[in-house]
Amino acid sequence: MTDFTEQDILGMKKAYEQAYISYKEEGGIPIGAALINNLTGELLGVGHNERVQKGSPILHGETSCLANVGRLPAKIYKNCTLYTTLSPCAMCSGTCLLYDIKRLVVGENKTFMGEEELLKSRGVEIIVVDDEKCKAIMAEFIKEKPELWNEDIGEE
Amino acid sequence: MTDFTEQDILGMKKAYEQAYISYKEEGGIPIGAALINNLTGELLGVGHNERVQKGSPILHGETSCLANVGRLPAKIYKNCTLYTTLSPCAMCSGTCLLYDIKRLVVGENKTFMGEEELLKSRGVEIIVVDDEKCKAIMAEFIKEKPELWNEDIGEE
Repeated sequence: MTDFTEQDILGMKKAYEQAYISYKEEGGIPIGAALINNLTGELLGVGHNERVQKGSPILHGETSCLANVGRLPAKIYKNCTLYTTLSPCAMCSGTCLLYDIKRLVVGENKTFMGEEELLKSRGVEIIVVDDEKCKAIMAEFIKEKPELWNEDIGEE
Repeated sequence: MTDFTEQDILGMKKAYEQAYISYKEEGGIPIGAALINNLTGELLGVGHNERVQKGSPILHGETSCLANVGRLPAKIYKNCTLYTTLSPCAMCSGTCLLYDIKRLVVGENKTFMGEEELLKSRGVEIIVVDDEKCKAIMAEFIKEKPELWNEDIGEE
């Protein structure tokens, strides 16, 4: 894998930790995210899906992460990488486009293929790790609670 | 304007009320939204931009509305109209795509043109009202706080 850095190892570790906490400690959906400033290497924040925990349809891993980070000026987002355990849905992809987050590292896209083509067409760099742990925790969750997973991606 | 119904008059009224409350009563950004079930006519909920009020970058009018409505099964969203005072940004447009909200009534798109073309290309019906009050409250706000508006749309 080209261009995968030490920062990326940290970012994916933090994102997976969040997925694990959501599912194993809180009974939620196992998708997590982290935001790192590429210029400073600073971990700006982390988050995970909170559909179950907060009863919210807009708190996916990525949006929850950005909510936890809080308000930032545009110039900061432009120099960040967003790490997520699962390919970003339309909402989370749109959020990347709104804030011009130019680099995205994705744990896996086998369980769910989000709007990667749209993001690429708008110039976002996407690196897919195809991580076994990210796939395994989603497989376990979907087997246990298929209806909850369908709700989270707007399927019946 | 074709296909603009009594329900739409109510929806836009509620959306504008939210924009007004956000700006005039709470010092926030004047963008509001409402969600109505087309099958029953029920107003499912309302919301407004909460960047200032809650320090959140993901609570735009439309996402805040969906958060206030709470979790819904996919089949409900598919039969809803989302009302918003301003053309939906990439995040809010992506949220409509995620939940397959097929009909959107937009107060105006002169102040800001969101991802209407993307939504149309995915089959979403969009009605733009070109409402003078929606334009006026945004003009007043942007004149007063241009930097806050730029932050909200990811501009510097």
